[in-house]
Amino acid sequence: MEHTTEIKVRYYETDQMGVVHHSNYIRYFEIAREEMMEHYGVPYRETEARGIIMPVHSLQCDYIQPARYGEILTVVTQLKEMPRSRITFTYHILNPSGVLLAKGYVTLAFVDEARGIPVRAPDFLTKVLEKYIDL
Amino acid sequence: MEHTTEIKVRYYETDQMGVVHHSNYIRYFEIAREEMMEHYGVPYRETEARGIIMPVHSLQCDYIQPARYGEILTVVTQLKEMPRSRITFTYHILNPSGVLLAKGYVTLAFVDEARGIPVRAPDFLTKVLEKYIDL
Amino acid sequence: MEHTTEIKVRYYETDQMGVVHHSNYIRYFEIAREEMMEHYGVPYRETEARGIIMPVHSLQCDYIQPARYGEILTVVTQLKEMPRSRITFTYHILNPSGVLLAKGYVTLAFVDEARGIPVRAPDFLTKVLEKYIDL
Amino acid sequence: MEHTTEIKVRYYETDQMGVVHHSNYIRYFEIAREEMMEHYGVPYRETEARGIIMPVHSLQCDYIQPARYGEILTVVTQLKEMPRSRITFTYHILNPSGVLLAKGYVTLAFVDEARGIPVRAPDFLTKVLEKYIDL
Repeated sequence: MEHTTEIKVRYYETDQMGVVHHSNYIRYFEIAREEMMEHYGVPYRETEARGIIMPVHSLQCDYIQPARYGEILTVVTQLKEMPRSRITFTYHILNPSGVLLAKGYVTLAFVDEARGIPVRAPDFLTKVLEKYIDL
Repeated sequence: MEHTTEIKVRYYETDQMGVVHHSNYIRYFEIAREEMMEHYGVPYRETEARGIIMPVHSLQCDYIQPARYGEILTVVTQLKEMPRSRITFTYHILNPSGVLLAKGYVTLAFVDEARGIPVRAPDFLTKVLEKYIDL
Repeated sequence: MEHTTEIKVRYYETDQMGVVHHSNYIRYFEIAREEMMEHYGVPYRETEARGIIMPVHSLQCDYIQPARYGEILTVVTQLKEMPRSRITFTYHILNPSGVLLAKGYVTLAFVDEARGIPVRAPDFLTKVLEKYIDL
Repeated sequence: MEHTTEIKVRYYETDQMGVVHHSNYIRYFEIAREEMMEHYGVPYRETEARGIIMPVHSLQCDYIQPARYGEILTVVTQLKEMPRSRITFTYHILNPSGVLLAKGYVTLAFVDEARGIPVRAPDFLTKVLEKYIDL
């Protein structure tokens, strides 16, 4: 299952190196998975409204070429496996010329907010994802 | 009542103009009032723990000279009046050479978090401030 | 001259009050004027490419109601006067129900980057704006 | 070679989960290596002033427990190997109770800014580091 999101680079995301500060790619990853989940009918705000929060468990990013102010980046997000106790999104970020700028992954946990304990991926989420996982 | 805080400019706070992005001064104002209130024995996390949140009501900032990466800025925060339904902090930010970089103010409200309604400045806060307001 | 931009609230823009942190409205203002200028054919990256940078001179913001995660905000940006030595954008931010969340203004200067001195609004900018200022 | 830095969690770094947003740990990593390099006499602003920029090449972070507003975090930064074409910092972040909150690494490259090409670690940096690398 794969989803493509466009993200426009903002001035406040640049640093004095003249390119996007590396920490912002981690935020682009977040935007991209939010857009993917919303596209598939399970927006994160609903997951949270149902009492499940999804804290980040681990992440990794390789930086290949810099992103620049004003560029419309393409973020390709992939969900390759059905989530169990965790869910892993993999990412590729490309600039308008199709050059790969960065790639990485983010793994999130599922936590029952009220009880503060890790739980398995909730049914309302897995039921939706099952339909799309092979796309 | 006046308090001075030092804030070191971080790389991620700069933008491609080679100086600190203007939005970060608003965050420096927040750091400075947090430090002031903590110094006077009423840290904001305690105010929040007592069920009072303090959303920003309005703010203003004049930018005079840019702040640069690595500089240790001096932020002078003043509380000139006892808070009633609102509290106003005024700020002056100076660089290590004593040059005034920015000045402004931030006014915050007091809101009872559980009921979601504005309230007057809580007693535990005003009792402390009364002792120091003329300093 | 007026322009409307939609901005989606991101998770990383919220704080533990459960709403958008006030400093991010200043970034929304920046996004909105960038979009406006680009819409009218004078994107900021071109202004900068021509050697003119536009540091913020002053800003003000009134916060009326909070913005929440996932909301698509409408930012109405107005340019009421032809820029001379400075340019002032005024803003109104509304939530999806049409409720006014915030209003404010940002005034920017024009600076010749190479010489580091303030200059008047460059001709390539005023020529374009003259055509649209009364819209 | 190891250095310990204290970083106070700011309100604007929290998100609506009530804890520090995961992207900010990447910024804490940056603060910590800046402090380490400054402590050892080679502040990053000097490296940049000498025409060498250090873009991030890759990073990884494991999130174990959340950091909370107001906490003074301890960041332990280690440099285990002399930099050659790249430099890798490893990190451990602990809360005031000594609980490990996160660990990770960041690898940076050395780039000659004027020519825009990767270079080896500059002599002025390696000469300093050689003296301390076994500490």
